[in-house]
Amino acid sequence: MSEKVVIALDAMGGDYAPEETVKGAIDAVWEHPLDIQVILVGKEDEIERELGKYEYVKDCIEVVNADEVIDMGEVPTIAIREKKNSSLVTAMRLVRDGKADAVVSAGSTGAILVGGQIVVGRIKGIKRPALAPFVPTKKGPSLLIDCGANVDARPEHLVQFAQMGSVYFENTMGKKNPTVGIVNIGTEEEKGNQLVKETYPLLKECKDINFIGSVEARDIVSGGADVLVCEAFVGNVILKFFEGVALTFLSSIKEGLLSSLRTKIGAVLIKPALKGLLKTFDTSSQGGAPLLGLKGLVVKAHGNSKSGEIKTAICQCIAFKENRIDKKIAKIIQD
Amino acid sequence: MSEKVVIALDAMGGDYAPEETVKGAIDAVWEHPLDIQVILVGKEDEIERELGKYEYVKDCIEVVNADEVIDMGEVPTIAIREKKNSSLVTAMRLVRDGKADAVVSAGSTGAILVGGQIVVGRIKGIKRPALAPFVPTKKGPSLLIDCGANVDARPEHLVQFAQMGSVYFENTMGKKNPTVGIVNIGTEEEKGNQLVKETYPLLKECKDINFIGSVEARDIVSGGADVLVCEAFVGNVILKFFEGVALTFLSSIKEGLLSSLRTKIGAVLIKPALKGLLKTFDTSSQGGAPLLGLKGLVVKAHGNSKSGEIKTAICQCIAFKENRIDKKIAKIIQD
Repeated sequence: MSEKVVIALDAMGGDYAPEETVKGAIDAVWEHPLDIQVILVGKEDEIERELGKYEYVKDCIEVVNADEVIDMGEVPTIAIREKKNSSLVTAMRLVRDGKADAVVSAGSTGAILVGGQIVVGRIKGIKRPALAPFVPTKKGPSLLIDCGANVDARPEHLVQFAQMGSVYFENTMGKKNPTVGIVNIGTEEEKGNQLVKETYPLLKECKDINFIGSVEARDIVSGGADVLVCEAFVGNVILKFFEGVALTFLSSIKEGLLSSLRTKIGAVLIKPALKGLLKTFDTSSQGGAPLLGLKGLVVKAHGNSKSGEIKTAICQCIAFKENRIDKKIAKIIQD
Repeated sequence: MSEKVVIALDAMGGDYAPEETVKGAIDAVWEHPLDIQVILVGKEDEIERELGKYEYVKDCIEVVNADEVIDMGEVPTIAIREKKNSSLVTAMRLVRDGKADAVVSAGSTGAILVGGQIVVGRIKGIKRPALAPFVPTKKGPSLLIDCGANVDARPEHLVQFAQMGSVYFENTMGKKNPTVGIVNIGTEEEKGNQLVKETYPLLKECKDINFIGSVEARDIVSGGADVLVCEAFVGNVILKFFEGVALTFLSSIKEGLLSSLRTKIGAVLIKPALKGLLKTFDTSSQGGAPLLGLKGLVVKAHGNSKSGEIKTAICQCIAFKENRIDKKIAKIIQD
């Protein structure tokens, strides 16, 4: 029997906690009762009240009490230091102490990034952990690394991002030797800003990855590379811009389709086709973003996650444990 | 009678030159025969052959011969220096010598940027010219400045971009005191990379602009600010990414709508609504991108421009002359 992956879920994190987080956990263990063990971390009474609403496999879910909650507006460094009994810090401590393999949280991104480094800790040799969400493309998801809050990276950081991203993509998407590109403003080697120009030759020399050169931003959505390496400011701008475009397009399409009887009838007819499109490019369906480079997995789910996204974020931890991704990252960095 | 604006059109620049450039010029002068004078610059025989296909107002169009053409793949600095008789350099010389007010070219962006600085020359006090395309948003076009090739800008550059962009937006879109935002990864003042953090207080102090703070990338398409200030690498990534998303969405919608008889019928019914949407977010309909900060106007049109885009790029020069935008930029910088 393969060992279960144990996930400490920050039950209090996110806009719809604890209702949706608890429901997400229950759905996840219904789907993978043999693979997943969830520890719900947070205010015990509130969690128990939610749990009481459902049927679920009791053996697969436990509760660990944590009285405090880190709010979205708090300064991450202070919150992590002062709220030691918060659901997030308590969940992270479970990973640090070997009682869980992964933390999933839909709480404050900043607090997750800081807590990941301070409480869970970096893998030896990793200079900077990186937040690496999947972004939807026409050819399937690409991993965009780094989208975190550690801006102004140096070339050696980007090389580690490429290595970690490559390992993660290969072991979650099951594609051997995934392509790695650097996000750039042109495809020629001499193009780019100082950081990209200095990083390019290092990636070219790096034996561990399948580097295919620069990927222009216009080719990201058509699927220019499996792993897209960039500095966090740029990655964050791409990710957020994509979310904005998707939302605005969607609301504009809806408005247009509901504008007359004619378009309303048309809308019914095209619904299946449109749904397919929206599904392909839905930035919220890609699960959570892993924070790579830590001794254990930390997954950041979107702040407005409903139970579906929480479930996806929990389930994506299975591959992490099964494929021993943290061990593989440690190995590639130490070699 | 107000003076005409004289536009030197690089008739040989772009993927569809000279057919589409010449046609674009003819369409522009048909639309504004009293306001526009076009000098077609390029291989005289080829241009005359194209002109021969159309009826047009002869007084509004003249031809200046230039035997060389700068190709897309050439190194800009070398091409500008060595191809003095190229259509682009010749057109730019007409502006430098006061024989034209503006240059429009769909040729190599790099050559246009270099030529603009070397041949046309910067306005006194301008540290860096900036390429400032309009991007479509739900509330109408926003000006994204800088999207050029001069990456790794300093804070004082970004302040000038904000001032120039503000003047350009006000005088082309007719909106007094347009809002100015800095593209950032969060809305709080302490968020951002080093460059943004250093620029933010300078923009806040700047009396000439209506600074509203940080605009997150997710709010760009919903119309977060009229003028969006950013460093060129970031601007270029946003612009190209937007183009890529629009193209991919469009082709995916088309594929989806043509996938069955049912969706084909639906497609006919929703066509007017869809067209409206596509028009709102069409990145190619926004005319050319002005290179601001030069002694004269230089407009970069998209490389794959057809006559419609060339016409739009030519017509947008009218406001530049009428409103004396270059004088206003010079004044705001010297004050």
